[in-house]
Amino acid sequence: MPSDSGYPQPIQELVAFLRRLPGIGSRTAERLTLALLEWPEQDLTQFGEALVTLRERICACEVCGNLADTPRCRICRASDRDTARLCVVETAAQIPVIEHSGCYRGLYHVLGGRLMPLEGRGPEDLRMAELHQRLAAGGFAELILATSPDVEGEATASFIAGDCAKYGVQVTRIAAGVPVGADLSFADSATIAMAMAGRRDIGQPSES
Amino acid sequence: MPSDSGYPQPIQELVAFLRRLPGIGSRTAERLTLALLEWPEQDLTQFGEALVTLRERICACEVCGNLADTPRCRICRASDRDTARLCVVETAAQIPVIEHSGCYRGLYHVLGGRLMPLEGRGPEDLRMAELHQRLAAGGFAELILATSPDVEGEATASFIAGDCAKYGVQVTRIAAGVPVGADLSFADSATIAMAMAGRRDIGQPSES
Repeated sequence: MPSDSGYPQPIQELVAFLRRLPGIGSRTAERLTLALLEWPEQDLTQFGEALVTLRERICACEVCGNLADTPRCRICRASDRDTARLCVVETAAQIPVIEHSGCYRGLYHVLGGRLMPLEGRGPEDLRMAELHQRLAAGGFAELILATSPDVEGEATASFIAGDCAKYGVQVTRIAAGVPVGADLSFADSATIAMAMAGRRDIGQPSES
Repeated sequence: MPSDSGYPQPIQELVAFLRRLPGIGSRTAERLTLALLEWPEQDLTQFGEALVTLRERICACEVCGNLADTPRCRICRASDRDTARLCVVETAAQIPVIEHSGCYRGLYHVLGGRLMPLEGRGPEDLRMAELHQRLAAGGFAELILATSPDVEGEATASFIAGDCAKYGVQVTRIAAGVPVGADLSFADSATIAMAMAGRRDIGQPSES
């Protein structure tokens, strides 16, 4: 932030904070700051306090690693979940994406990352010990690996499948392919290859 | 924000605040909140406090109405400005835009809006009394009207030109036309009309 942007110091400070957020450039940060100046003082105070207290009010669920404001997250506390299914995701931010779809009612396990050998991130940096503990305790029939379908996500899924084979739990991997509603013309080669490799028999047309 | 977004309450609160900012939808607000969770706690606290104290640290300059953290803004306090020129803008946010261009070294006067008869905003809602006071005090040679070149901005400029004619100060209006660097093919009719009406004699080609 050049000091000659013409704004008083308190505004420049706020612009500098907003610019650190992903996807927010200096012009957007200025626009957001000017919008914040129009807010009622009480709302600004509440917004600021929500930021100040964010970290002390949010913790990782002691069971699954999901974001929580209690020792156990809402999903682990819920009584209506399918406790025989465990879905492994890379980050807690991916849980709401799956929850929004409404297609899964099982439990989750947050790895806290993915295997990235080139950056020195190995299995010991993931929440693997907690995963082994949950699987060893028994009760799970299926382990669904929902890491992202890219090189590192596939490697992470393969590693977990091998590492957790000993528990005799069915291990599955989410399907990768052309996204629903997408035009095939714009799909990249890797996606097409995944979609081809994962093709299913849908029977003879005459049977339908 | 539906309550079943799956995030704990403190995160949902922050998402709700961020969504009130211009151009921030619910997905972006979620993404920004998750990014904020990665910040060091000290930075989050400073960011929050910058918001809480914003309104008490920012005021309107008592002379020109610009945003300031002292009774007089930096431009009104500066000793190297051209005090014979006064540029009238609609909002304080437009001053940095003109300052960034580096083409103007005079003073400013923030109207605090524009004439909007259909919404009941008349001259009494603008900082006209302060403008009259400044012009009556003398010392200005030129009054530059830099309201936006749209219907309401033009009406506001015309009104001020008439209202301030009695001070014998030269009143000018910023040029409207095709933006520099823009392709004429994409200019709208109103801009073309403005550019045509404001055309200047640039001499015979043989003279150049």
